[in-house]
Amino acid sequence: MRVLILGGDGYLGWPTAMHFSMRGDEVHVVDNYLRRKMHAEAGTDSLTPIAPNLASRVNAWRELTGHTILATEGDLADWSVVERVFRDWTPEAIIHYGEIPSAPYSMMDRHRAALTQYNNVINTLNVLWAMHDFAPDAHLVKLGTMGEYGTPNIDIEEGWIEIQHGGRTDRMLYPKMPASLYHCSKVHDSTNIEFCCRAWGVRATDLNQGVVYGIETDETRIDPRLVTRFDYDDVHGTVLNRFCVQAVVGHPLTTYGKGNQTRGFLNIVDTLRCVELACRTPAAPGEFRVFNQFTEQFSINELAELVQVACVEYGLKPAEIRHVENPRVEKEDHYYNAKHTKLIDLGLEPHLLSETLVGHVFKEIERHRHRLIKDHILPRTTWRGGYQAAQPPAADQAAADQAAAVVGR
Amino acid sequence: MRVLILGGDGYLGWPTAMHFSMRGDEVHVVDNYLRRKMHAEAGTDSLTPIAPNLASRVNAWRELTGHTILATEGDLADWSVVERVFRDWTPEAIIHYGEIPSAPYSMMDRHRAALTQYNNVINTLNVLWAMHDFAPDAHLVKLGTMGEYGTPNIDIEEGWIEIQHGGRTDRMLYPKMPASLYHCSKVHDSTNIEFCCRAWGVRATDLNQGVVYGIETDETRIDPRLVTRFDYDDVHGTVLNRFCVQAVVGHPLTTYGKGNQTRGFLNIVDTLRCVELACRTPAAPGEFRVFNQFTEQFSINELAELVQVACVEYGLKPAEIRHVENPRVEKEDHYYNAKHTKLIDLGLEPHLLSETLVGHVFKEIERHRHRLIKDHILPRTTWRGGYQAAQPPAADQAAADQAAAVVGR
Repeated sequence: MRVLILGGDGYLGWPTAMHFSMRGDEVHVVDNYLRRKMHAEAGTDSLTPIAPNLASRVNAWRELTGHTILATEGDLADWSVVERVFRDWTPEAIIHYGEIPSAPYSMMDRHRAALTQYNNVINTLNVLWAMHDFAPDAHLVKLGTMGEYGTPNIDIEEGWIEIQHGGRTDRMLYPKMPASLYHCSKVHDSTNIEFCCRAWGVRATDLNQGVVYGIETDETRIDPRLVTRFDYDDVHGTVLNRFCVQAVVGHPLTTYGKGNQTRGFLNIVDTLRCVELACRTPAAPGEFRVFNQFTEQFSINELAELVQVACVEYGLKPAEIRHVENPRVEKEDHYYNAKHTKLIDLGLEPHLLSETLVGHVFKEIERHRHRLIKDHILPRTTWRGGYQAAQPPAADQAAADQAAAVVGR
Repeated sequence: MRVLILGGDGYLGWPTAMHFSMRGDEVHVVDNYLRRKMHAEAGTDSLTPIAPNLASRVNAWRELTGHTILATEGDLADWSVVERVFRDWTPEAIIHYGEIPSAPYSMMDRHRAALTQYNNVINTLNVLWAMHDFAPDAHLVKLGTMGEYGTPNIDIEEGWIEIQHGGRTDRMLYPKMPASLYHCSKVHDSTNIEFCCRAWGVRATDLNQGVVYGIETDETRIDPRLVTRFDYDDVHGTVLNRFCVQAVVGHPLTTYGKGNQTRGFLNIVDTLRCVELACRTPAAPGEFRVFNQFTEQFSINELAELVQVACVEYGLKPAEIRHVENPRVEKEDHYYNAKHTKLIDLGLEPHLLSETLVGHVFKEIERHRHRLIKDHILPRTTWRGGYQAAQPPAADQAAADQAAAVVGR
């Protein structure tokens, strides 16, 4: 299968590229290094020392496995890039990770909010037009997020819901209450994609993914030059990665607010398998198919407790759990039951989270401990006030001192 | 009240500005003349000869009424413009018409689709950040469209719907199935606005407006320099305006497909009243309030028949109704029952469509008949093929000849 991977230099994009390439698929990755540039701008970095660019990654891959991965450096928001890739290398499947994926980044200020929405909406629109013009039978596998749904008081279905109302019935798109301006951008994408399925007969699978954790896949293990990035900072890190880093360096595990917020989670190896399952069994022409892509639900407190147990088993000092003021606007006590059976039906065999896996992540963090940047772990952006307001105000010096203590300054 | 009107040079924006100004409110309009530029590019124009720019409009208004309307020429997608307006002239109400409003334009090609979404989404996002930064207690009155909902098989509620599912209940956003990439952009706006209400406590009223018809308001009648634009071309014209023009020039009334498509309609004078009612009774802090803003539902066939009857009463040759191939992707037979009671509850007294009004529009068209551009009335853009594909293919010369006959070439 000819698989185009957008955002192929990223945490998930690069392992996905190797996963398909290893299985004999033709793979072409596109990336503009936006994540690398955002890290450079913020003074943060991946914990793992990733290869410096796509050329070195695909060269190492060819040297180690004999497989070729094509790479294009370019911005998907630039139509000339998208047009060229689709015209010259007609894909059968497009796996679209190529978006700015950070909720805090989108809430920092107007510029970053607009950049997030511009980048994500326009580049997905470009992909849709390129499919319309050059690859009308291709299958779009688009990474969405469970955060598009919010936390409704009813079960979360997989994209569509049958609604009975006033004695009549229709199958409708599941209503969404996104959790940040970044999550809004993913809802916009879903809206555009569903429309193009209806209007143009596009085949699409929208994968509403949970929070991904983990650091290794079968292919990243082959050689240090193939490792994928591991983000733990306030802008790009996800919660379990942050907890693991905090546990290793002996900081408290910082939960936002009460910590009863419940979300879906999955292992990076399951992400690759889910994306592959979606590609191998494509949506029908005109079908807007939605899968909820996660394997387990946890509250933030449950996750923190799991990391505490893992500390003991691994031989680390047991981490303290510290509830910090919630920088986000979100419900801290809520119903949460999200369906996630469609990928299981296609054959997914979940790798569930266990203390063993957490211990393995601890080990990787320890190996790269000298690279840790400790002063960018705690949140500096609040949903109400943006980036500036997240700086401890002078009037609240006690809180500032506590924050400084937590980050170990 | 200090009322900021975005898109204040437009069909609805300019009459709205005069409406509030006449009632003693302080009014500030912003526009970048994008509609005028799009017409110039396409070789089309308003039927009515509108004043050449905002300066001449507000000068005439002051001369005729003694009232001052402030005017800023600028692009709302440019943050420096939005920032300056909000910082220097803090509004209490923001009436936001400032968007590219054309469904066919958004389906022409990639460039115009991206421009529509970029312009609409980013400029609304800019307005939301400006409210956050400079006018947190102001009330946003945003023009959406009934076309955001599509044609579901259940009653269309006003923005929110109570859903019972699996023994549980929640009040959720009404699911939307927008009708074009333009309509998608309005859904994106609604998603962003609802989020900002939740996250920042913004007050917002989203007016999902039906198809507006009519040409005159109390204020446009005062003087020819105050008239508003009247679009009837394939890109910016709406269906009733098109039928009236076709009737006056003796062309068939062209209905798309079967013509059983049903939509909500309202008179321009009711638009002004609805917007005023929304402003005078603002949404609460954090409230995302949605009104369906139309007064009557008609099928396209019913509208055409109403125009036929008006022809007879007015003394025009009875117009033929001609069903042309539907350029859009839409259901031509469908259930449609959209609620629209909330504006009535606030005091709206609808001006219903009658043959008398249609006769009045005929008269205005006849007065400006010498300005009619007849070869841009029929659709040149199809939803599946964009602009180029809408040109009659050589293999379909009979259809081309028929189309040429209809437009009177």
